[in-house]
Amino acid sequence: MENFVWHNPTKVLFGKDTVPELIKLMCDEKIKNVLVLYGGKAIFKNGAYAQVIKALSENKINFTEIGGVKPNPKVDKVREAIGRIKMQNEAADGKFDAILPIGGGSVFDSAKAIAAGACYSGDVWDFFEGKAQVEAALPIYGVLTASATSSEVNGIAVVSNPDKEAKVSMSSDLLYPRAASIDPSFQVTLPPKQTVNGGVDIISHILERVLDGDEGAYIMDDIGYAMIRNMMRIIPDLLEDPRNYDLRAEYAWIASMAHNGILSCGRVGRGDFASHRLGHSLSLLFDVPHGASLSVMTPAWARYLYEDNPVPFARLAENVFDIFDGSDEEKAIDAIESLEDFFSSIGAPVTLRELDIDEAEIERIAENASKGGAFGKLSKLEPEDVLEIYKLAY
Amino acid sequence: MENFVWHNPTKVLFGKDTVPELIKLMCDEKIKNVLVLYGGKAIFKNGAYAQVIKALSENKINFTEIGGVKPNPKVDKVREAIGRIKMQNEAADGKFDAILPIGGGSVFDSAKAIAAGACYSGDVWDFFEGKAQVEAALPIYGVLTASATSSEVNGIAVVSNPDKEAKVSMSSDLLYPRAASIDPSFQVTLPPKQTVNGGVDIISHILERVLDGDEGAYIMDDIGYAMIRNMMRIIPDLLEDPRNYDLRAEYAWIASMAHNGILSCGRVGRGDFASHRLGHSLSLLFDVPHGASLSVMTPAWARYLYEDNPVPFARLAENVFDIFDGSDEEKAIDAIESLEDFFSSIGAPVTLRELDIDEAEIERIAENASKGGAFGKLSKLEPEDVLEIYKLAY
Repeated sequence: MENFVWHNPTKVLFGKDTVPELIKLMCDEKIKNVLVLYGGKAIFKNGAYAQVIKALSENKINFTEIGGVKPNPKVDKVREAIGRIKMQNEAADGKFDAILPIGGGSVFDSAKAIAAGACYSGDVWDFFEGKAQVEAALPIYGVLTASATSSEVNGIAVVSNPDKEAKVSMSSDLLYPRAASIDPSFQVTLPPKQTVNGGVDIISHILERVLDGDEGAYIMDDIGYAMIRNMMRIIPDLLEDPRNYDLRAEYAWIASMAHNGILSCGRVGRGDFASHRLGHSLSLLFDVPHGASLSVMTPAWARYLYEDNPVPFARLAENVFDIFDGSDEEKAIDAIESLEDFFSSIGAPVTLRELDIDEAEIERIAENASKGGAFGKLSKLEPEDVLEIYKLAY
Repeated sequence: MENFVWHNPTKVLFGKDTVPELIKLMCDEKIKNVLVLYGGKAIFKNGAYAQVIKALSENKINFTEIGGVKPNPKVDKVREAIGRIKMQNEAADGKFDAILPIGGGSVFDSAKAIAAGACYSGDVWDFFEGKAQVEAALPIYGVLTASATSSEVNGIAVVSNPDKEAKVSMSSDLLYPRAASIDPSFQVTLPPKQTVNGGVDIISHILERVLDGDEGAYIMDDIGYAMIRNMMRIIPDLLEDPRNYDLRAEYAWIASMAHNGILSCGRVGRGDFASHRLGHSLSLLFDVPHGASLSVMTPAWARYLYEDNPVPFARLAENVFDIFDGSDEEKAIDAIESLEDFFSSIGAPVTLRELDIDEAEIERIAENASKGGAFGKLSKLEPEDVLEIYKLAY
């Protein structure tokens, strides 16, 4: 078992009516001026926006709003918000002392980049290119309205920069939200597509650990398998019964645990994340939803390398799919097919064809994915491997 | 799924050679004068003491030592340390600004009571009787050398007061250690007895949740089952191969997760803890090791009430013991017998007789346990129930 640091300082307020508690906490912690950040109209319909504004007013916290954060969030929107904060702070007229994202992973990720960028004199993209490290950041108090990425409980932000054809992540201990309200009530109105995409993302965060080839953190693998089994029960049930609060709550809590860092404890490295890298190239170039990019690329990635690395797939077969017969190789391919079947059964795409991506684009997609050089943990993927995987995904 | 708050601010430095990192962190956080607290001679033999003192000296942190904390720690020792801190602080000559326990749960629990008592004008026992709430506490930076209680990652302290025939707990968010080094290397020299007692305690912390009758936090139950299955693999392996670092590490990390609060997320209440209450009476009156008190009382408690509440025991049967045949009642009793057999197989006592406790003492033990009134969650235990359970345990 490898050495590790486990430290997750975010205070999670989970359950019904936790927005007022979050805002009360901000008041207790002397927050006076907050930037409220959100995406589209969903938060007006699900009630989250109204609850936040009411509680901010009651607690006499000033706020400024910026909406319009998109899925696969772009650095331009981040820069716009940073500019707004810096302008007001220079006027010294009620400096911003916190950021309050209302939304899902895109809004939280953007909030983190803004929180860091607002305290940095250079351009925020420097953090994503590794040219600068976060040394200070505004505190984030978030209201989660769509579970998937765990952004509400980690220090990671993923942002796209179309000018540079880049979708990359930054992370810092300073970017863990100080507190997050996770009220699953807001999620009962999510459309099936989002339940599916989010669910695939959650399962993928777990697979990136249990399939990374690391041995010795057996308990963390077993916890991961338990999470996947439960997600495979919850997603189909939710598609039948989308307004079921308890199912939404289970989904939300597994989403948070899947990528809050706990599954990385005891591993060499923090997981594999090759499937995520392969998916990012699709999201960047064709704005494919993050979850859909993963339901396509994870099985293709697995098919490409399971023969050389059957063991983690065989363990997945036994512990998630109740497949016990055959050699490790046979169990492995059975598990990959079962995973693919599951994705298909919930309506997630499993081929590039289903995403309407032209076969002629594959080389460009592969080149983009390999721009930063070889990647991957279970197997190091050179550019030629990456190309083959996209071909398999077609 | 019930509302909950999940917030565990302790920074865990897990693995080999993490003591110097912990002390470096104290230095970074401007700690100048620390009270070093420990129990017996083990820390001189396993190297923990030497590593701490070396690192404190290198980082120019002053320290004062108090040793002699006993298993089932007593309030008198806690008062002694508080007196020492207050005396020095009044002299204003290098006020204590932190406490550094080196040891297992008893030393950590004592450190918490000292940390709170040092910042309180009254007697520390007030906290345990609920007469006072913790409003301030010295920060704790701990070096764990024996895993079992999770005290290194929670805000709970259990202390005995023989004058009042009481072994009770206090808890506060202010008592989470600020940081803890968990270096499993120190544990490779632990005697088999301690591996067994600690292991039973760890399993019991999980059982107190998965057997509490609460439904709706399925994922947390499944994580609990995974922890128990792994502990049932690890303990016998460690008894064969006590110096195996990786097994010690797995044991240590499951110990920390078992009672850091995560398994309570989504439940009504924080767990049952009737078995713990039943065990405390034995520890208080006969100084029975905590783990031994649990291996005796948990099966007796289970036998007494499974017929009225077979479901959680049947789920345990399926998910931990691979028992799938029969009615819920039949699976339940099979699971209880399997658990008892497992405890016996690792050399843990399962009857009061094995603890050399006289049958004539049972009434006194039961009276002591019921002093605070009825308790328990799966089933409320009135004094007459408690008496019957101790009789079953004989």
